[in-house]
Amino acid sequence: MHIFVEIGPLKAYLKHQLTSHFSIGLVPTMGALHNGHLSLIQTSKKENHITVCSIYVNPIQFNNAADLEKYPRTLEQDIRVLQDAGCDALFCPGNSEMYREATRLKFDFGSLDKVLEGEFRPGHFSGVALVVAKFFNIVQPDRAYFGQKDFQQFKVISTLVEELKFDIQLICAPIIREHDGLAMSSRNVRLNTDERTRAVVLSQSLRESRDRLLKGESFSAIKKFVMDKCIQSNVRLEYIALADRENFSLLDNVREPGRGIILIAAYVGEIRLIDNLFLTEN
Amino acid sequence: MHIFVEIGPLKAYLKHQLTSHFSIGLVPTMGALHNGHLSLIQTSKKENHITVCSIYVNPIQFNNAADLEKYPRTLEQDIRVLQDAGCDALFCPGNSEMYREATRLKFDFGSLDKVLEGEFRPGHFSGVALVVAKFFNIVQPDRAYFGQKDFQQFKVISTLVEELKFDIQLICAPIIREHDGLAMSSRNVRLNTDERTRAVVLSQSLRESRDRLLKGESFSAIKKFVMDKCIQSNVRLEYIALADRENFSLLDNVREPGRGIILIAAYVGEIRLIDNLFLTEN
Repeated sequence: MHIFVEIGPLKAYLKHQLTSHFSIGLVPTMGALHNGHLSLIQTSKKENHITVCSIYVNPIQFNNAADLEKYPRTLEQDIRVLQDAGCDALFCPGNSEMYREATRLKFDFGSLDKVLEGEFRPGHFSGVALVVAKFFNIVQPDRAYFGQKDFQQFKVISTLVEELKFDIQLICAPIIREHDGLAMSSRNVRLNTDERTRAVVLSQSLRESRDRLLKGESFSAIKKFVMDKCIQSNVRLEYIALADRENFSLLDNVREPGRGIILIAAYVGEIRLIDNLFLTEN
Repeated sequence: MHIFVEIGPLKAYLKHQLTSHFSIGLVPTMGALHNGHLSLIQTSKKENHITVCSIYVNPIQFNNAADLEKYPRTLEQDIRVLQDAGCDALFCPGNSEMYREATRLKFDFGSLDKVLEGEFRPGHFSGVALVVAKFFNIVQPDRAYFGQKDFQQFKVISTLVEELKFDIQLICAPIIREHDGLAMSSRNVRLNTDERTRAVVLSQSLRESRDRLLKGESFSAIKKFVMDKCIQSNVRLEYIALADRENFSLLDNVREPGRGIILIAAYVGEIRLIDNLFLTEN
């Protein structure tokens, strides 16, 4: 696997691939790789000649300094994992390579970045969009792979690609879960044993909410049920919401189950976790 | 000259140029081409294998509906002019090709888009940046050419390119002027004979301001002088400002003449004109 920390050598390598008419798949990550990331790498390998993984903990998308500081960094292990997975190239730049001067550009995605994650993490999606746009212009991939766990982020990046006419196909890959249903996340390693047990309340809440919704229960009653359930598990619920998968408008009830998604965010101890479920998913 | 109104065929044409390792120069315009635009085409032709001109009156960068409606549109004549100039390809899309759905993305450039043109034309630079980013991703040029007349716009686009890591060299070409000094602009054709005569006050004010500044006069005194001069010419001054060419901070006096630029905006009748002058320019 080729490892690049600077843009210049990476671009030279990619230019060589392009002249061979090779297609390029990009998997942008913040490292601390788990099986969710690996499924993205595997999908990219199936669909492209060359797979590039980026590992960069993007400071400007963290609205919480402690979260940035404590975000797990496991580069040596990540490199081994990527090598074993057959990833072709890793781009792991430092901050000075990504941000040569102070950031002056911010994005506003309208209502999309004002609700749920946008409301609870102000500035987060602007920071995500900026770094992803950088990676898109540096790597110029044919396809880019993101996890469904960050579904609102996927909608933000879809908007970025549509609005700026990036010639990139976006793929949203299913959430990979632990045996008890917990969505895989780099932040899970920060949970202690007790928190790890309690964290299952997120995915359980999603599945029970889906079942109740499809039986015709009102979403306001379901919200109350989830609030109580979280209190019982000593988990601090930030939101549980029903949204339209296409336009990401928030809903009070389901009209078309095929377009519905339930999203949840909660603190388990000091660790903030998110998860979601399409109404049509198992 | 190849003429494209849709993105798909343009991209197919450009892909063919890329596989021949041809370099591409882009000259984005709003049409109503004059000698200022032609100088950009000529420069691009010298520096690239292929020159692409875009003509698109971008609705979202107009903060004034009447200005958008009355913006001169002379496509047939523009096509002849571009053909005579040896331009290789013209891209003149319709609104539905550029904006498939309602715009949800806005840019914020911090202080850069809050002063001067940004202050007097709210939303203007966000609209400019969005359409230019689209053109950059559609054409993927090696170089892009802009006129110094829209100097603040050039700083906005420079920021866009730096922040999003577009691999594009930006060229800022000198202002082309009429014999009496009026900066060439598509809007000049809207001036009646009397207004056309009075419009010279903008470039005269810039040159006199520069001379007075370099002699040590304070900029606040110069501002007052220009205000009076505009009143005498029955021209409504919007601003005259001294700025740093590099970081675009507004200045009260000159420390480094090599970094100074004077900018002016004024209404001559109903027509809003802008102009600027580097302190080191003749």
